[in-house]
Amino acid sequence: MAMEVLCFDLEGVFVPEIWINVAEATGIDELRLTTRDMADYDELMTHRLTTLDAHGLGIADIQQVISTMAPLDGAQEFLGWTHEHFQVVILSDTFYEFAEPLMAQLGFPTLFCHNLEIDSSGRIVDYHLRLPNQKEQAVRAFQSLNFSVFAVGDSYNDTRMLLAAEQGFLFCPPQKVVDEFPQLPVVTDYDQLKQVLIEVSTRGW
Amino acid sequence: MAMEVLCFDLEGVFVPEIWINVAEATGIDELRLTTRDMADYDELMTHRLTTLDAHGLGIADIQQVISTMAPLDGAQEFLGWTHEHFQVVILSDTFYEFAEPLMAQLGFPTLFCHNLEIDSSGRIVDYHLRLPNQKEQAVRAFQSLNFSVFAVGDSYNDTRMLLAAEQGFLFCPPQKVVDEFPQLPVVTDYDQLKQVLIEVSTRGW
Repeated sequence: MAMEVLCFDLEGVFVPEIWINVAEATGIDELRLTTRDMADYDELMTHRLTTLDAHGLGIADIQQVISTMAPLDGAQEFLGWTHEHFQVVILSDTFYEFAEPLMAQLGFPTLFCHNLEIDSSGRIVDYHLRLPNQKEQAVRAFQSLNFSVFAVGDSYNDTRMLLAAEQGFLFCPPQKVVDEFPQLPVVTDYDQLKQVLIEVSTRGW
Repeated sequence: MAMEVLCFDLEGVFVPEIWINVAEATGIDELRLTTRDMADYDELMTHRLTTLDAHGLGIADIQQVISTMAPLDGAQEFLGWTHEHFQVVILSDTFYEFAEPLMAQLGFPTLFCHNLEIDSSGRIVDYHLRLPNQKEQAVRAFQSLNFSVFAVGDSYNDTRMLLAAEQGFLFCPPQKVVDEFPQLPVVTDYDQLKQVLIEVSTRGW
C-alpha cells in the first residue's frame, strides 16, 4: 500500500440521491432539488427544511424512506476493492442521522459529514455544517499529513475537493458540471474508475 | 452519530506486537524490543533493520511470519462495534507492507502508518516515516476539521496522541507507561473500553 488516501463523495457515487428518494416517496417535488441543481448549499438546505416543516414531516419520516434505499449496483464490491488498496474516507455533505442505514449496507466505511439538530417531537430544527467547505479542507488535512489524495465526486459541492486533490475524477456527472470543469477527467462506471485509480496510484499492482 | 473520530493504535490494541512475533519465529532475541522498551523510534527501527540484515532476512521472511498472525481475541467484534458508532482511523507506527495481512482480517479499517523501502532482492533498505509524530498530527488534523477525538493506545509512541485528544485511554499498558502518565485512564479489556467510550461520547445511546 502506498501512502495514498482516496476520498469519495457518497450520493451519486455509492448511493442514490437521498433527497430525490424522499421527494418520490412523499410526492413533494420541491424536495427533488440537489447540489446538482443549486450550487449554494445553505440556500438548498434552508429550502429543504422549510419544505419539510410546511408538510409536517420530521426525522422519522425521512429515516423511514432512507431505510428502504440500497447502494447503487456494484457499490459494495467496488468499495470493498478500494479498501484493499487504499485508505478510504467518504466526504459527504449529508448528515450522520440520514447516512447511518446506508453506511450499514456499505460496511461502515469512515465518513466525514454533518449533523442535524432535532427537537423532542422529531422536527428537524436546523442543520449544522461541521465545517464550511469540509471536503476541500479534509483533502488539505490529509495532504498536510503527507498523503497523496485521489478524489471522486459527481457534483458542484465536490469540485473544490477534486481540484485540491493530487488527482480528482468526476463520476457520472451532469453535463453542466463537465462543461464548467473541463480539467477534471470523467468516468462513468466502477470498472473505469478502478482502471484510472490503478493508473494514478504509485503502489505496485 | 456525533461528530467524533476515534483513533486507535494497532499493535497491542487489535493485533499482537509484530516484531515480537518475528523475534519468536526467527529465534532472534534482539528483535523483541518494541516501543514499550525503547522510547526513541528511529533508534529502535535502525536497530531492527541492522539486525535483519545481519541475519540475511528480507521482506518475504517477515511477511511470512505476519501471515500466520491473528488479531487479538475479540478484536474484530469490538472494532465492528466501534465502526457502527464512530468514525474510526487506526494510527500506527508500523508499515503498510507489514500491516496488510492483518488489515484483511480486521475488515480493512482506515489505517494511517508508514512505509518501507525494499530493493529488488527483497532486502528492507530503509523505512520512511510518512510524518514525524504522525499520531498527534493526525489527531490535530481531525480537530482542525471540527471533530472531537477519542484515542486509545498502549505505549510510549501513543502518549502524544492520547494527550492531544479530547480524551485518551491507555489500553493494557506496561506499568512504566502508567506511572509516567497518571493523567491517562487505564482500561484492560474491550468491554471496559466500550463502557468508557459510551461515557465520553456525546451521541445518544
